[in-house]
Amino acid sequence: MIKVGIVGGTGYTGVELLRLLARHPHVEVEAITSRSESGLGVCELYPNLRGHYDELRFSEPDPQRLGKCDAVFFATPHGVAHALAGELLEQGTRIIDLSADFRIRDAELWAEWYGQPHGAPELLEEAVYGLPEVNRERIRSSRLIAVPGCYPTAVQLGFLPLLEAGLVDPQHLIADCKSGVTGAGRGAKVPSLLAEASESLKAYGASGHRHLPEIRQGLGDAAGDNVGLTFVPHLTPMIRGIHATLYGRLTSEPGDLQKRFEERYANEPFVDVMPPGSHPETRSVKGANMCRLAIHRPGGGDTVIVLSVIDNLVKGASGQAVHNLNLMFGFDETAGLDAPAIMP
Amino acid sequence: MIKVGIVGGTGYTGVELLRLLARHPHVEVEAITSRSESGLGVCELYPNLRGHYDELRFSEPDPQRLGKCDAVFFATPHGVAHALAGELLEQGTRIIDLSADFRIRDAELWAEWYGQPHGAPELLEEAVYGLPEVNRERIRSSRLIAVPGCYPTAVQLGFLPLLEAGLVDPQHLIADCKSGVTGAGRGAKVPSLLAEASESLKAYGASGHRHLPEIRQGLGDAAGDNVGLTFVPHLTPMIRGIHATLYGRLTSEPGDLQKRFEERYANEPFVDVMPPGSHPETRSVKGANMCRLAIHRPGGGDTVIVLSVIDNLVKGASGQAVHNLNLMFGFDETAGLDAPAIMP
Amino acid sequence: MIKVGIVGGTGYTGVELLRLLARHPHVEVEAITSRSESGLGVCELYPNLRGHYDELRFSEPDPQRLGKCDAVFFATPHGVAHALAGELLEQGTRIIDLSADFRIRDAELWAEWYGQPHGAPELLEEAVYGLPEVNRERIRSSRLIAVPGCYPTAVQLGFLPLLEAGLVDPQHLIADCKSGVTGAGRGAKVPSLLAEASESLKAYGASGHRHLPEIRQGLGDAAGDNVGLTFVPHLTPMIRGIHATLYGRLTSEPGDLQKRFEERYANEPFVDVMPPGSHPETRSVKGANMCRLAIHRPGGGDTVIVLSVIDNLVKGASGQAVHNLNLMFGFDETAGLDAPAIMP
Amino acid sequence: MIKVGIVGGTGYTGVELLRLLARHPHVEVEAITSRSESGLGVCELYPNLRGHYDELRFSEPDPQRLGKCDAVFFATPHGVAHALAGELLEQGTRIIDLSADFRIRDAELWAEWYGQPHGAPELLEEAVYGLPEVNRERIRSSRLIAVPGCYPTAVQLGFLPLLEAGLVDPQHLIADCKSGVTGAGRGAKVPSLLAEASESLKAYGASGHRHLPEIRQGLGDAAGDNVGLTFVPHLTPMIRGIHATLYGRLTSEPGDLQKRFEERYANEPFVDVMPPGSHPETRSVKGANMCRLAIHRPGGGDTVIVLSVIDNLVKGASGQAVHNLNLMFGFDETAGLDAPAIMP
Repeated sequence: MIKVGIVGGTGYTGVELLRLLARHPHVEVEAITSRSESGLGVCELYPNLRGHYDELRFSEPDPQRLGKCDAVFFATPHGVAHALAGELLEQGTRIIDLSADFRIRDAELWAEWYGQPHGAPELLEEAVYGLPEVNRERIRSSRLIAVPGCYPTAVQLGFLPLLEAGLVDPQHLIADCKSGVTGAGRGAKVPSLLAEASESLKAYGASGHRHLPEIRQGLGDAAGDNVGLTFVPHLTPMIRGIHATLYGRLTSEPGDLQKRFEERYANEPFVDVMPPGSHPETRSVKGANMCRLAIHRPGGGDTVIVLSVIDNLVKGASGQAVHNLNLMFGFDETAGLDAPAIMP
Repeated sequence: MIKVGIVGGTGYTGVELLRLLARHPHVEVEAITSRSESGLGVCELYPNLRGHYDELRFSEPDPQRLGKCDAVFFATPHGVAHALAGELLEQGTRIIDLSADFRIRDAELWAEWYGQPHGAPELLEEAVYGLPEVNRERIRSSRLIAVPGCYPTAVQLGFLPLLEAGLVDPQHLIADCKSGVTGAGRGAKVPSLLAEASESLKAYGASGHRHLPEIRQGLGDAAGDNVGLTFVPHLTPMIRGIHATLYGRLTSEPGDLQKRFEERYANEPFVDVMPPGSHPETRSVKGANMCRLAIHRPGGGDTVIVLSVIDNLVKGASGQAVHNLNLMFGFDETAGLDAPAIMP
Repeated sequence: MIKVGIVGGTGYTGVELLRLLARHPHVEVEAITSRSESGLGVCELYPNLRGHYDELRFSEPDPQRLGKCDAVFFATPHGVAHALAGELLEQGTRIIDLSADFRIRDAELWAEWYGQPHGAPELLEEAVYGLPEVNRERIRSSRLIAVPGCYPTAVQLGFLPLLEAGLVDPQHLIADCKSGVTGAGRGAKVPSLLAEASESLKAYGASGHRHLPEIRQGLGDAAGDNVGLTFVPHLTPMIRGIHATLYGRLTSEPGDLQKRFEERYANEPFVDVMPPGSHPETRSVKGANMCRLAIHRPGGGDTVIVLSVIDNLVKGASGQAVHNLNLMFGFDETAGLDAPAIMP
Repeated sequence: MIKVGIVGGTGYTGVELLRLLARHPHVEVEAITSRSESGLGVCELYPNLRGHYDELRFSEPDPQRLGKCDAVFFATPHGVAHALAGELLEQGTRIIDLSADFRIRDAELWAEWYGQPHGAPELLEEAVYGLPEVNRERIRSSRLIAVPGCYPTAVQLGFLPLLEAGLVDPQHLIADCKSGVTGAGRGAKVPSLLAEASESLKAYGASGHRHLPEIRQGLGDAAGDNVGLTFVPHLTPMIRGIHATLYGRLTSEPGDLQKRFEERYANEPFVDVMPPGSHPETRSVKGANMCRLAIHRPGGGDTVIVLSVIDNLVKGASGQAVHNLNLMFGFDETAGLDAPAIMP
């Protein structure tokens, strides 16, 4: 059993970590922090956890105590991991950061999109982007993981096989993404009210969204070049789920696209290439650490469409974080992540 | 007061016609037909109409009786209007067909997509495609209107200003569309159950959907050439609403796109070009005969994004049908269509 | 045309007043106030109103300007109408208060439930409880109307025929009520987020809710005695609608209950007694100023069940407010309130 | 490892059994039957199960093959278990029936409510009503279990402590119950469409529902007498969940009700008595085999309110069925049932 801490545990990725770790055979949650709810029992805030974490209470973030953990998850707004990471690493604690703090390798680019200076540029070099389907080996030995964002996970897994094989024009990629409202977090904001967000659908950030540079970086790595990406996220009236509809223009005859995808992900426990003609539903991954993909090429033309679905809180956040933990500590990759999605 | 009939009144476009016509100052509903529910009071099926249509009952479709109406709406599956239109036109009744029967000018193309021979090719020449923003004058004098489909309405109104001005590459248009479930009609099908469609989102028909040839025809007219269109519809967990996210590639510097759109629709009562930077929500048109548009050009690059929202049952069906009626009979265009959307 | 003002117009009852008044033939909205949004165009906050109120902006509440209106609606939290009512009445402006300020006749009881002293006890005597089905004549001549709460409207209309006729034991009434989330207002609170309130249902205030004394007062008037009422409200995952399930114990053989209800409400334009055996759906009144009722007596036993549905924002708030306005100014009772519910 | 079969596996209780059994350490699913989908892979119908049951296909119900299983679940409409149970029992297969076939001990009463003669009255004597909180010991040794209905589970667990202690008037019990739509099954019916059931709420069966005699039987056992129960179920716009709001009239001073409930369920792994003042949300048990209860006594009066929530597909069906299996085969009671609810 290893001991883990969770910094910033009151949000949706925090409670989702607790849900997944409740069944993890090798992990014990030692501490969970929250400045605003310090002292409160986690089950008072999340009664679904009654019977699982009856003794666990939110505490003030204490680097000493966290430093006694084998690993610490950050489920915090950006900037927090910057401030604490160095101190924890010095104590030998490994870090799995679900925030955006270490996702972008270029500190200036980060500062531009997040509107504040990067707080720990000295750690960027050793930070590993925690997309296991790309960086599995580097993750195993890393001390500091930047867990990918939800949109970036869905978009990259869909585009990677095309870009790695040089099949599509990297200058004209389109990612039309639809997300459930938990993507906006647990903050009390009017647009996230049921009365506002239910029975409606809207785009947002059509002219620029913070996940854009992260996706560009990942796709650029795969393409071996800068990419041109149009990314439009949409808010949809559901709790969980991301559906990325990806459009690429084929530059030559691609051969059997289905087979290419199946081979790319043949050994991946958390990527499922659906049969030809499929239209994956977001509910087919609800609560599960899984990305399901389907490939379409209408009329045999020059446009390829990839449909990619994940649960934004699992494969798009907390589940992927646990997957990284499993790799870092040599556990079975699926430990704690083996439950099927809940449907209906 | 004119007298109108509704053929096939038990579906969602039928009840929506009744809702809108309940407040129309110049229209009286003379007959509403349904083979399956003949004899039933409309308010027994639709209690929201109690107090408005207490005497109206569904009746067998009787061409004699319908022929006494000034106008007849078809709110039927495809094929029905084919069978009845000729006989009604002979009796001097004007037809407003909400089905797909007369939307596509090419009878063979129609037959290909609908899997059966076209039933009234002799009427195609005089049928007018009832998109008032394009065909207003022809609609006024027409006897036979093909009301556009829901997706085609949202997509065409968004792309028209760009194509008419030749600003985008007509060979590489993308329409990523999201619809509420009423788009699938009132049929009892498992995938439309709340337990199946709620809390989920999926694409469908990614390799080809019946609205594709209709949209291509309309966009081709605007472009003066064949167009290449990738169209992916999605089913979303809400009752009403379509959100079309449209992507075009600019072929040259387009000037002030916002102004172009505003000028194109300056005199249109049912198209609203939102201020720059807007992201229209589908709920902003719920229950109203309105299309709201917003234009984005991320980073000043070569991709233009148009966001287009309608209520699929109103501007995408019954409201647009009433608009056509108003034009045909010389009523105020907004008669019966002047209520704001309901929000929240 | 009369001129009206709306104090506190950013909430849901405010925008609903605007939606209804947009089609009212005799009313012009002169001013709408909001301290927090002063200067903002109402259509910027509520784009569904674009085209209807393009010139109207939220303004600071100015008693001088409001005093020039024929009537002023208060769509405010409790306490605001207390502070302004006297000054407006002095200027000859009639007041229709949608808040709780004047609903309870006993100032001390009010203070007990609202946790602050009553701010205008001197006005209580002339305030009229604006339930037209009970107080129609007094409303016509009133200067100050307390519009009933949403739960109180649904519960009273269901119990009144039983209590007025002395058919049920007034000491053991049960009202199990289910409400959509707009009942909680537009405030940004975590429990009202879609991610929290969707796909779930809970009771709240089971040990006491502010609407309890208001309901007790109204039912007591009908019964001619104090009543014993157990009232449990529930939060349900929908935007609009209240479903009150009412249980009474018959004290003697009641005769034809259906007929009693039909007779009681025979001349009421906004109460609809459904046929025997009905189960009214909240959606059958969505957007409409209507209460639909059904009466059940399982097994011919001593328990009578009344099912009562309203739209909490219309018959439970803004629609009933307009109904009061119509009575006060001698307009047709249904002016602005004649649209059918929207369904589906 | 034991081998189990599932008869009628295409419905919601069938797929839920598969989801729960996917993680059961001692169970292997040997066969799953469906007349309509014979030959289809279960993962084609339920893609959430991909990776878990890739080889499992629906087959025709074959008593020989089912007879080789240690236990068979019936997830069928009523009547099916009647027809097959005898033959399976003879082969030594134990039966866990999720349908209503063996819930009511009186064959004539069953016939009255289900409109057909009871098909296996000779088995009624040995059938055990599978509510572990009442019949744990009898379940262990039983060959034939009638798993309680969803409403009956929520209502009985809430009323039992009151009735067993004789604290409330057994003649005037009220159960106002709210259910998600999966309670109506996976049948393609218009009222269950998202477009019909979403954004609305209604009562149904107010004059009599099939779960009524089952609940009366269970409560009568607890009270030691016939009970008078008014039971009104409601359809609510969510997928899963039942919220039972229970009203009883105290006949004498009851002492510490909270403590009574806590003691009654002190050793029950799947009943959670919440702290005083709680209002359990249905989502707090989503996907979990748990019933959460809260007790209220407004104003210290003579009415006691119990709030009882379950997931209708888990503690109200498949989870309770697995709990019975665990008891019958001597497994840990929580085997396969230890995952926390998913929230949000």
